[in-house]
Amino acid sequence: MRYLKGHGTENDFVLLPDAEREIDLTPDLVAAICDRRAGVGADGVLRVVLAATDPEGAAMSDETRWFMDYRNADGSVSEMCGNGIRVFARYLVDSHLEAPGEIAIATRDGVKKVRLAMTGDVTVDMGPASFPGPEDVKVWAGGRSWSAVSVDVGNPHAVAFVDDLADAGELREAPVTEPAFEAGVNVEFVAERGDAHVAMRVHERGVGETRSCGTGACAVMAAAARRAGAGAPTSYLVDVPGGQLTVARRPDGQLELTGPAVLVSEGQLRPEWLAAAG
Amino acid sequence: MRYLKGHGTENDFVLLPDAEREIDLTPDLVAAICDRRAGVGADGVLRVVLAATDPEGAAMSDETRWFMDYRNADGSVSEMCGNGIRVFARYLVDSHLEAPGEIAIATRDGVKKVRLAMTGDVTVDMGPASFPGPEDVKVWAGGRSWSAVSVDVGNPHAVAFVDDLADAGELREAPVTEPAFEAGVNVEFVAERGDAHVAMRVHERGVGETRSCGTGACAVMAAAARRAGAGAPTSYLVDVPGGQLTVARRPDGQLELTGPAVLVSEGQLRPEWLAAAG
Repeated sequence: MRYLKGHGTENDFVLLPDAEREIDLTPDLVAAICDRRAGVGADGVLRVVLAATDPEGAAMSDETRWFMDYRNADGSVSEMCGNGIRVFARYLVDSHLEAPGEIAIATRDGVKKVRLAMTGDVTVDMGPASFPGPEDVKVWAGGRSWSAVSVDVGNPHAVAFVDDLADAGELREAPVTEPAFEAGVNVEFVAERGDAHVAMRVHERGVGETRSCGTGACAVMAAAARRAGAGAPTSYLVDVPGGQLTVARRPDGQLELTGPAVLVSEGQLRPEWLAAAG
Repeated sequence: MRYLKGHGTENDFVLLPDAEREIDLTPDLVAAICDRRAGVGADGVLRVVLAATDPEGAAMSDETRWFMDYRNADGSVSEMCGNGIRVFARYLVDSHLEAPGEIAIATRDGVKKVRLAMTGDVTVDMGPASFPGPEDVKVWAGGRSWSAVSVDVGNPHAVAFVDDLADAGELREAPVTEPAFEAGVNVEFVAERGDAHVAMRVHERGVGETRSCGTGACAVMAAAARRAGAGAPTSYLVDVPGGQLTVARRPDGQLELTGPAVLVSEGQLRPEWLAAAG
């Protein structure tokens, strides 16, 4: 079974080219592939499948050729991933399956537009951010507490501005919030770094602290721009532990996430290993 | 650049076939390859080089064809690794570079004999264990303390028998010992599992808690056999977090470490990635 490994700001993925959807991609197989010591190791699997051959992608196949079948490391199905789709697009172009420029990719969250720059950076439209409330959230971490704002970017975030990112402590457990979020919440801690430039750490719900989070960067940009008030920048540099992203807001309110997308290696899973894993 | 990924009881390695020693294997490149998110990800790199072409291996080239050039994940040079050499031997046989049976492999710790069984298990001679003292070491972890015995298996270990492996706590930091070991010490916590069967956790010096440790399993077997006294078994099953090993003592005092050695995948590092990493 052929695969590639890649990452976007150290959010890393195994890509499985499977145009005709022939791989029996069970949750157990996904978990075995993502195992960082007994497998290849990754935050998730991106199966590259022709939209027309995929039951979930077929409805979008008049708008795009490719469906991103995204799975979490535990084997569960997921809708979308801002870093993952940028790596997915990098693969399509590097493999000459698509021309550079704008590419439409079907996901479980609808069709997304992705653009590749000459610099190697990849941009994806992440949709708008909204502030659904509660307006004043309290967040506890590292023995301290902060006020946070709740931001929705398709998934829920609580964004707290801090003086020093280290103040949030080791983030081994999910920060407690008040009010509590019934379905959980991603929590971002943000420090100012300069004009239109912030740095963040993120605790992703159900995962833990991660090196990067695409929706988290978008939530942080939206919160920072709202905090800056009238005349706020429309584009922010957002430092994450795994690198640097740019989030820009278009006049129509859409957020664009831009950053590196790197392919590290490509190869084959060994048949004996696959037989044992499957 | 071609590579393979493999593991022995979840101690994982990137193998670099480099018979003619043509790769400029800098510490930075090793660290980039071992990076679990921005690289391939592994506990270390095993360069597969012909002994005759390696400056360190040449002196052993009349006894063996291959030199295991082992590097730690941080890029530093290392002598030997009981799990690594088993994966190294698995590669030699699976690649038809050596016939199954007994294979001699040169390492920085001398020539080691490795044997492949029909079952897939791989055995390596680890040398003898000794009890150099101090005889009574005190070990602190998880807010508790135990008596431990110091064991030397080429490197220093302190082995503590516990009622429950969970008693050692989260092992995020190195257990404190008294007396202190100037060059650091690997600490094993061991629980009895039955006749000639123990389970262990290990904190490796300079690394942290790991899924497996070949010399640690040997130190644990030696300590368990000594504890059992006259008539002690000469072969123990040793459960590690990443699987199961067997350690047997031959009449000449040599310890033999046996366990699975698995190749997961093989492929190429992408040239663009290599250019950026190197």
